[in-house]
Amino acid sequence: MNPPLPPQKPSSGLPQPIDRLIAARWILPVVPQDTCLEDHAVAVDQGRILAVLPTREASARYAPRERVDLDHHVLIPGLVNAHAHGAMNLLRGHADDLPLLRWLRERIWPAEAEHLSESFVHTGTLLAAREMLRGGVTAVNDMYFFPEAAGRAYLEAGLRATVGMIVIDFPTRYGAGPDDYLARGLATRDRFRGEPSLRFSLAPHAPYSVADAALARVAALAEELDLPIHTHLHETRDEIAEHLALHGCRPLERLRRLGLVSSRLTAAHAVHLEETEIGLLALHGASVVHCPASNLKLASGIAPTTRLIEAGINVALGTDGAASNNRLDLLSEMRLAALLAKGASGDAQSWNAHASLRAATLAGARALGLEAQIGSIEPGKAADLTAVNLSAEELMPCHDPAAQLAYCAGREHVEAVWVGGEPRVWAGQLVAKAPAGLAAAVCMWQNRLVSSKDN
Amino acid sequence: MNPPLPPQKPSSGLPQPIDRLIAARWILPVVPQDTCLEDHAVAVDQGRILAVLPTREASARYAPRERVDLDHHVLIPGLVNAHAHGAMNLLRGHADDLPLLRWLRERIWPAEAEHLSESFVHTGTLLAAREMLRGGVTAVNDMYFFPEAAGRAYLEAGLRATVGMIVIDFPTRYGAGPDDYLARGLATRDRFRGEPSLRFSLAPHAPYSVADAALARVAALAEELDLPIHTHLHETRDEIAEHLALHGCRPLERLRRLGLVSSRLTAAHAVHLEETEIGLLALHGASVVHCPASNLKLASGIAPTTRLIEAGINVALGTDGAASNNRLDLLSEMRLAALLAKGASGDAQSWNAHASLRAATLAGARALGLEAQIGSIEPGKAADLTAVNLSAEELMPCHDPAAQLAYCAGREHVEAVWVGGEPRVWAGQLVAKAPAGLAAAVCMWQNRLVSSKDN
Repeated sequence: MNPPLPPQKPSSGLPQPIDRLIAARWILPVVPQDTCLEDHAVAVDQGRILAVLPTREASARYAPRERVDLDHHVLIPGLVNAHAHGAMNLLRGHADDLPLLRWLRERIWPAEAEHLSESFVHTGTLLAAREMLRGGVTAVNDMYFFPEAAGRAYLEAGLRATVGMIVIDFPTRYGAGPDDYLARGLATRDRFRGEPSLRFSLAPHAPYSVADAALARVAALAEELDLPIHTHLHETRDEIAEHLALHGCRPLERLRRLGLVSSRLTAAHAVHLEETEIGLLALHGASVVHCPASNLKLASGIAPTTRLIEAGINVALGTDGAASNNRLDLLSEMRLAALLAKGASGDAQSWNAHASLRAATLAGARALGLEAQIGSIEPGKAADLTAVNLSAEELMPCHDPAAQLAYCAGREHVEAVWVGGEPRVWAGQLVAKAPAGLAAAVCMWQNRLVSSKDN
Repeated sequence: MNPPLPPQKPSSGLPQPIDRLIAARWILPVVPQDTCLEDHAVAVDQGRILAVLPTREASARYAPRERVDLDHHVLIPGLVNAHAHGAMNLLRGHADDLPLLRWLRERIWPAEAEHLSESFVHTGTLLAAREMLRGGVTAVNDMYFFPEAAGRAYLEAGLRATVGMIVIDFPTRYGAGPDDYLARGLATRDRFRGEPSLRFSLAPHAPYSVADAALARVAALAEELDLPIHTHLHETRDEIAEHLALHGCRPLERLRRLGLVSSRLTAAHAVHLEETEIGLLALHGASVVHCPASNLKLASGIAPTTRLIEAGINVALGTDGAASNNRLDLLSEMRLAALLAKGASGDAQSWNAHASLRAATLAGARALGLEAQIGSIEPGKAADLTAVNLSAEELMPCHDPAAQLAYCAGREHVEAVWVGGEPRVWAGQLVAKAPAGLAAAVCMWQNRLVSSKDN
């Protein structure tokens, strides 16, 4: 027998002072599943969601210091971009229309070899963070070099981030090799301790670019420090074939042998999976990050999302970097993921509008190990919220707000974004002006990239 | 031996008065193919393009009554939406997540049976025309009931349109059967004679919904009146199987026998084609309208565009209706067409950014039989132009304007649109305010549709 619940408001009946009350025409809280609340409000205090309740009731119960009325909007959990390389915004459009391994080896890696620096990563990541916030993203799972510069950029922009401590075999301007990368990554993590919006993951780049010893060390560190593992997995057929020739097994099997397959594992792409591999990921509770636009653009293929979800795997959504997308636009990935799932499975009923929103929020939170903190509009979670205005002519009529969001709205309709209760976008504009010199820095890097490409 | 060309400007050297000079940072004229002009200008007079030349030269040669400087923009031919059902904007989101034949038979046709009217079509088409113009579309190939109401809406909005004279076996609130539909269609065409921005096509709905006699009459009328034929073709496997069972042949073969396969034919969808069918369409110079989003959403499949283009078929782009897309956004179709072509063919180099723009402009013009009038920025053609601002933070840096347009820009970046030299969009807003009562009319139809769905 449970004891009776304590009353939610003081018995005096006086309205409770809170920071902010956000009332919306529609709320899609994601939990409970497939729910659309009409004329409800979210009570926010000290950066957290206090309650979700009918607006009329909320108006009586709370005395908010600020009240926001979203009369034509759908309020959703802030979107989670579960696989990105923020700094690569500087490489947007630098190498289009090439397959993954040529794209990496002929264009991206040489450009990085020449230009990588703290400053490159800071500028590119800041540009990416601003693009994501403006499009309703409130948390990102990032992997790139110079994680300290990336961490600073995400802090400055006010975007919640899990920053990867990258590990890759070859030396770059950032580090000498796996041990050096790990040492630098862990030192960066120590330096940012105490920043609640920044977390760190172990980020071995991919099975084809990291040797056994480093992968085994990643597995051990993940256990020891309780960290998520973020890696690229089975993105293309070619990398699997090369891996088979070199290691005598497919990449996922090597990760398994080295102890990396667990609920800590977040595998980006996972385009090419055999049935036993799907079973393995499901068994261990690993997450997959579906990157539909990037996978098409590099001609990698279409991940079998319908099958993955059926098998019980947590499927999140990611944009990948701007060099292979070329936008960090999670609303657009939501639409594409739904369309592709229907087209590829031949079943128009598969992956509906609510499934898109779930993948872009709660599943992303789970992939980051943050499902207790973010990913749905529930009491106790951080007030990471995105409001999309559905009143534009091109969104008329609105029969179903979830469908309108997934199939019809664009990031230009995002009108307000809060991270931990703090406004980041208001009236469709970023609250923080672009830092002086951002555009000039982007232009400078563009010129350098062009002149090195021409040589 | 050719005679020497006459001088382009009067020998007096005085600047020539013209209506408008539009100078742009970049111009993608589509003809010549794959060209990007920097710091060029388009001279416009009496609704037509007079010349395309370097801005410095244009400034000396012309004395424009209006000069437009697009310092951060790419100027492209107005986009051509080669397959749409404008009025279905009222059915946007009315029936999501269903396969084509169930979607039609259980939801769309019943809704139409109950609600179709002049007023429904006028309101829906006006909404669609405004959405398309706002997104950079300057010409549309429309098919729906009550073509007179559609024609009026397109004229009011100022969007160039080819309106289909629909033919379908079953009676609707618009007509009693094929003969009646044709008589009404031809009468509508007569009524609009003299409107240069409106043309008409013969629009048998689909082989599965039109009997032999009516199809044969369409073929005869097309020859007699020199009209294009606009139909749905091989959209789903199911409709082909049903047709085979009923008629003993695949739909395209029946169209061929009845004389409908020629350069007049514009076949929307064409998702499922055998190699001999591709050969047949190529041989006769028929056009295909690729509708990638709609085909995925209804789980119809992915049209083999790479193969079609290789075979020499003219492949245009269409949105289909808002009930199966759910946006009339040709920029988004350009992106999806490129991504899908790469993903489906396994070749990241196939269908590049220029190919997307060509499909959305010149190929569309050709599908409408208007390639001499629109579809490229060439002297003598109508001044149907769209300017896209590439200076937003989310479009930085800009290494290649064509790639930026196809892979990165959204319709929200469309800043100016001219149809026949007349401004329709300026500073990102439609020049014509929404007619009083448009929003209320949309709302009224939404309420009617909801109450009939609930019954």
